[in-house]
Amino acid sequence: MRGRVEPRIFKGARDFPPEEMVHRERIVETVRRVFQKFGFAPLETPAIEYLEVLSGKYGEDADRLIYRLNYKTDTRDETALRYDLTVPLSRFIAMNPNLVKPFKRYQIQPVWRADRPQPRQGRFREFYQCDVDTIGTDSLMADAEMIAMSHEILSALGFEDILIRVNDRKLLTAVVRFVGVKPERAPDVLRSLDKLDKTSFESVSEELTEKGIAREAIGKLRDIVQVTGDAGTMLPELAKLLAAVPGSEDAIRETETLLEYVSGFEVPEGAFRLDLSLARGLDYYTGPIYETVLPKQPHIGSLTGGGRYDHLIGMFSGTETPATGTSIGLDRIFSAMKQLKMVERQSTRTQVFVTVFSEKTRKKSQQIATLLRRAGVNSELALDVEKLKKQFGFADKKGIAVVLVIGDDEVREGKITVKHLGSGEQVSVDENALLDHLKKFPV
Amino acid sequence: MRGRVEPRIFKGARDFPPEEMVHRERIVETVRRVFQKFGFAPLETPAIEYLEVLSGKYGEDADRLIYRLNYKTDTRDETALRYDLTVPLSRFIAMNPNLVKPFKRYQIQPVWRADRPQPRQGRFREFYQCDVDTIGTDSLMADAEMIAMSHEILSALGFEDILIRVNDRKLLTAVVRFVGVKPERAPDVLRSLDKLDKTSFESVSEELTEKGIAREAIGKLRDIVQVTGDAGTMLPELAKLLAAVPGSEDAIRETETLLEYVSGFEVPEGAFRLDLSLARGLDYYTGPIYETVLPKQPHIGSLTGGGRYDHLIGMFSGTETPATGTSIGLDRIFSAMKQLKMVERQSTRTQVFVTVFSEKTRKKSQQIATLLRRAGVNSELALDVEKLKKQFGFADKKGIAVVLVIGDDEVREGKITVKHLGSGEQVSVDENALLDHLKKFPV
Repeated sequence: MRGRVEPRIFKGARDFPPEEMVHRERIVETVRRVFQKFGFAPLETPAIEYLEVLSGKYGEDADRLIYRLNYKTDTRDETALRYDLTVPLSRFIAMNPNLVKPFKRYQIQPVWRADRPQPRQGRFREFYQCDVDTIGTDSLMADAEMIAMSHEILSALGFEDILIRVNDRKLLTAVVRFVGVKPERAPDVLRSLDKLDKTSFESVSEELTEKGIAREAIGKLRDIVQVTGDAGTMLPELAKLLAAVPGSEDAIRETETLLEYVSGFEVPEGAFRLDLSLARGLDYYTGPIYETVLPKQPHIGSLTGGGRYDHLIGMFSGTETPATGTSIGLDRIFSAMKQLKMVERQSTRTQVFVTVFSEKTRKKSQQIATLLRRAGVNSELALDVEKLKKQFGFADKKGIAVVLVIGDDEVREGKITVKHLGSGEQVSVDENALLDHLKKFPV
Repeated sequence: MRGRVEPRIFKGARDFPPEEMVHRERIVETVRRVFQKFGFAPLETPAIEYLEVLSGKYGEDADRLIYRLNYKTDTRDETALRYDLTVPLSRFIAMNPNLVKPFKRYQIQPVWRADRPQPRQGRFREFYQCDVDTIGTDSLMADAEMIAMSHEILSALGFEDILIRVNDRKLLTAVVRFVGVKPERAPDVLRSLDKLDKTSFESVSEELTEKGIAREAIGKLRDIVQVTGDAGTMLPELAKLLAAVPGSEDAIRETETLLEYVSGFEVPEGAFRLDLSLARGLDYYTGPIYETVLPKQPHIGSLTGGGRYDHLIGMFSGTETPATGTSIGLDRIFSAMKQLKMVERQSTRTQVFVTVFSEKTRKKSQQIATLLRRAGVNSELALDVEKLKKQFGFADKKGIAVVLVIGDDEVREGKITVKHLGSGEQVSVDENALLDHLKKFPV
């Protein structure tokens, strides 16, 4: 060991101190609980993957952002840190061909991007992804379940007025063909359309013009994707309009069925909507796509988003394996909850602070802390014998709501003084009535 | 995107499929719950740290095992993956001088070692560490709390006949001086002694001889460290024996106080023991050291272990910051629980499988699944309409205990057929009595 080292954190990475982790853990617990209620099972894959597994999946720009490791292994394979959770999932599925399908898994792990960090915009080099996917069925029930579950998760976290925007890549592709864009240009057009939630149609229009899309096509596109209203009236109209486009009938039927299934999961009617302007950026989507937003908070952006990708896993397994899934944007959800003042002020999960009055009473304080802990009450015990005022100050700084005092008098009389720091209220309770008292004043 | 890629997992890393994750999640939840009951708060730090922060802390051999990243950042700093959780904690403490002390944190995150993997011996290149530390107090109460908490964790996981071996580096150093070893050789001697739980004193003796320790010193050492018995009789005898060694009086008193405090936390008397042969390998320990074992399962090794390290954090902060903490060996605990058949056969957390009989009854099945999920019952819904036999087979393969059938008759009569796969029992219950029925037969 050598001399002093300047303590610095890697640029673009974050420490999560207790006051943040308390909330993050609660969010993750809630999300995980909903995943389990919907019958999803946990999976974890390693941070390190062979470079060959990762590269060539995300597109050229993204490939440059893969973190490579500089380590001479006994093999000559290059290694890297995972870039997302979808490619490792695909690798896992391909390596385990005997998994019972449909395989429903969730995965909550960090990913890395060798990007220029922009902490103010919420862009970091290391961040958590929280993915949930159903593998091995082309049933639209799987997509509907994703949408219902997204609604359930955000509701369980306390969000109100959630809107799930739903669309279908097949439908969008039919629309793009209808307006006169060649099929092979469709992905390019969809990537531009995807920016509609952040920008006006005018700038999307400019971008499409630059991409060489005809003015007339852009105009038609605008007319269609900006239609809003009830799917029950939109879809029949769209069916008529697109009648001549091959595949449009299937696309319309798929969308109708999907919406019917979502409704079957009792998602409130106002909480999801067919939105023809939803495109989603990734190339690999093949069917339904979905995204949740808070329409009253347009600046917040989407909190969850996903879709069906029926061809990606086949790149590893060699056999077509249909799949659909969504990402839960933990970072964005956390920052939305902060902005909307949905996180309690609470900075600790510790409910009770047990003071130690003197060396003589220490053992009694230890006993009381042990009693509380065994009863499931999160309790911190003073480790040093210090002035009571200092011990109270410590509890206050930590945000612990209840402080117990057990002095000589208390020990003699079998009593405990309970002080509620919030109200300032102070009562003396019998030692064996302590748990009941704390239950009555939950902290 | 290009053609097919052979799916391979990085050598020395592991996927954790659902049937393992179900148990790992339970263990982590239990451990976390005990941490919280003892007033510890969560912390997370990034996987990537500057190399400078990591290197020079672990010793030369370990430094070679640090995973370096090959990435040209805007800075010219070298970066690497964290090797453990203690050095990142120390960096965090130093960067946050205004933290309220004592700072009690737990941290459960993976670490990486660029080592030759030996999966059969449980050595991997990527594995979880689970650390819990109290920073900023030299009170032995903090050490006693660690010992009590280790006992509580293993008890909560279902381990019986736990033994916590307790010793003190100050005491050991006094013993080593007493037998005639120079103080500067003490760490070297302790590193050899540390092997006593895996090997006989004879081979430790050989190693010490090779290190140039005199035969007479080794003999004396053996006599002392192999004494067993009650601390109440051992310590006074040791006090007499070591009386002439400077610092021995303090060391004896510290050990006595520690054991008294552990007892104050109501750890059963038979569950902890002063064990002069416990040394622990790391150089940085400065006071109490502790380790839990299962004496009836000597092949399993220690499940938790830690100690006081009062100088490490000062390497970053520049000011001495006392600290004590322990590691919970999640991997070893999990494999011990498997060996001792303490993990249930259960391979899923899903309690109920809801079949879909036909397109016509699909919506009713969706309703029932939604009802169950909202009531907190983990439920998987059939996504494809297939023969009931196939649906039952699926539930069975997944290990789901209860299957619901909702056919045309059931829908007409407002009934649901509940089949318990374990017992083969099948009953028909009213739709609105379903939740009560499932409560009576918890799954």
